[in-house]
Amino acid sequence: MTGTATVRLSLEEVHALCLDTLRAAGLGEAHAQAIARSITRAEADECRSHGLYRLIGYVDSVRSGKAERHALPEFTPAAPAVLRVEAKRGFAPLAVETGVPALIAAARRSGIAALAIHDCYHFSALWADIEPVVEAGLVAWCFTIGQCCVAPSGGTTALLGTNPIAFGWPGPQRRPFIFDFATSASARGEVELKRRAGEPIPEGWAVGPDGAPTTDPAAALAGALLPFGGHKGFALSLMVELIAGPLIGDLTSRQAKAVENGDSGPPLGGELFIAIDPAVFGIDDLPARLGAARELFTLAKAQPGVRLPAERRYAARARSRVEGVEVPAVLHAELLALRG
Amino acid sequence: MTGTATVRLSLEEVHALCLDTLRAAGLGEAHAQAIARSITRAEADECRSHGLYRLIGYVDSVRSGKAERHALPEFTPAAPAVLRVEAKRGFAPLAVETGVPALIAAARRSGIAALAIHDCYHFSALWADIEPVVEAGLVAWCFTIGQCCVAPSGGTTALLGTNPIAFGWPGPQRRPFIFDFATSASARGEVELKRRAGEPIPEGWAVGPDGAPTTDPAAALAGALLPFGGHKGFALSLMVELIAGPLIGDLTSRQAKAVENGDSGPPLGGELFIAIDPAVFGIDDLPARLGAARELFTLAKAQPGVRLPAERRYAARARSRVEGVEVPAVLHAELLALRG
Repeated sequence: MTGTATVRLSLEEVHALCLDTLRAAGLGEAHAQAIARSITRAEADECRSHGLYRLIGYVDSVRSGKAERHALPEFTPAAPAVLRVEAKRGFAPLAVETGVPALIAAARRSGIAALAIHDCYHFSALWADIEPVVEAGLVAWCFTIGQCCVAPSGGTTALLGTNPIAFGWPGPQRRPFIFDFATSASARGEVELKRRAGEPIPEGWAVGPDGAPTTDPAAALAGALLPFGGHKGFALSLMVELIAGPLIGDLTSRQAKAVENGDSGPPLGGELFIAIDPAVFGIDDLPARLGAARELFTLAKAQPGVRLPAERRYAARARSRVEGVEVPAVLHAELLALRG
Repeated sequence: MTGTATVRLSLEEVHALCLDTLRAAGLGEAHAQAIARSITRAEADECRSHGLYRLIGYVDSVRSGKAERHALPEFTPAAPAVLRVEAKRGFAPLAVETGVPALIAAARRSGIAALAIHDCYHFSALWADIEPVVEAGLVAWCFTIGQCCVAPSGGTTALLGTNPIAFGWPGPQRRPFIFDFATSASARGEVELKRRAGEPIPEGWAVGPDGAPTTDPAAALAGALLPFGGHKGFALSLMVELIAGPLIGDLTSRQAKAVENGDSGPPLGGELFIAIDPAVFGIDDLPARLGAARELFTLAKAQPGVRLPAERRYAARARSRVEGVEVPAVLHAELLALRG
């Protein structure tokens, strides 16, 4: 067996593997179910950095006692258009599932609404968090911090999280425009996958512990990643740090690092959602406005070399429903061993 | 007199020059006042791309009949937390001044609120639009389209506007963290200033009319600018296009270009504001949360080579109050001639 050998699993098998592994680790059933759904959706979309590989960190954070195994998320309205879910140091997926229906209702009622997930361990893909909001016909954003491993643009010391941003537009039907990217030049998960694969990272992604540019993923993980797009990406990273941290009463990624126990799971933190109902801005012309958006997507795709966010994921989703997914054999063996 | 000769003007003189020029062009007094305030603030902050140079385009759009000289912005609440100002094809600054106090009140009432400025000619700096919201203690964003001159990442044909994003955080006092950047690699105004100065533009900013990379600002203006940060900047540009266009019932930058009369003023379009009151997320700990944000700014600035957005503007603001501003003599003469 080489490093590139794979095992093919159906999505049902992926889901069962998640559920069995999380149950065996002693995680509460509602959390295990929500995380199994989350990981299966990531695998279905070939979003491997948030797929089965994440089971290792989830199990690690259950075993280390960092994540509350049976935390029941508690919903509270904070203001007429602002909702809050106390995750009580549980994993995020169950808290997100708890809050999202109320966010959709509040956005329809008030035109715009926000949802803060407080005090959670977030380890899943952001596009998956907003997809139900977007499929309900709303425009949506969400933001969370990530592990504190990103230096400011021009600097060399980690101060910021990978701080991803997701945005979604409710169209075209069943294949909405959704993007989700780290404000670092790469996600930390991508660097870790490169390290596991023994491959170098591109220039411009990171500096080593000495502050010098590096293409060695291990040096990057020991040093600092860099923001994408220079000072603009740095500004966006700071924005995410502020609105998913201090704004909603949660930690900055640096504060989260200070309370970390060093397991391979996610840092403690918060997540902010914003949703807007396009129906409130005009009564009659919503179809025409959605049509103008669709034209924009069509014209972009008509240019050779242009790809829209999420298209690769939707193609993978259609394929994996039929064919299942390829899982590296080494990872599969590691996951089976996790059940102990 | 060489091309680098300058004239020194006090901020009062800048304001008077704007007012006299706009009145002489026949623009309604309320609009002239609002634009004079807007341009004077940009000059005070040495934000030259949105300073006196913009008078040429404003006057051009008055003379061409594109902008309504006496349009009175009309305020309407669209939903409990969504407000709307019909600018009626007038310039944006008066419409923004009309809507912003209501946005602040709505965000305090509902926790989060949005304001759509509909059917306006936007030609001012976005940081100035949100500064009053941020100084009122709120977190704020605003978005608008720009001239349709940006190709999708990987493409070569202009489809998107320069689509700037502004974000502000209410601290530190009197020098809030505010950033404002084009989602193109550069603002169109910067390319135009380079062309006026006879200087090349950096690589990566643009492609020429033939689709090949160029450093010639004239070729860039005839071809297409590129998004900053590759596919991530492209995704953000599309987001701005959608939320400042179709979402609020306004034009995409491409639709705006199609109805353009070709004068040197701004395209027709909309502007979206979002504001959040940090006080709604927790009753007692707001000072601590603002402190955590302040620490983030302090630690970023402590790294050699790191500069925070807006710092250069605030330094310029303190200086120009005392010393006034330097205006290129060529531009000053051109502006004096504008009064006709």
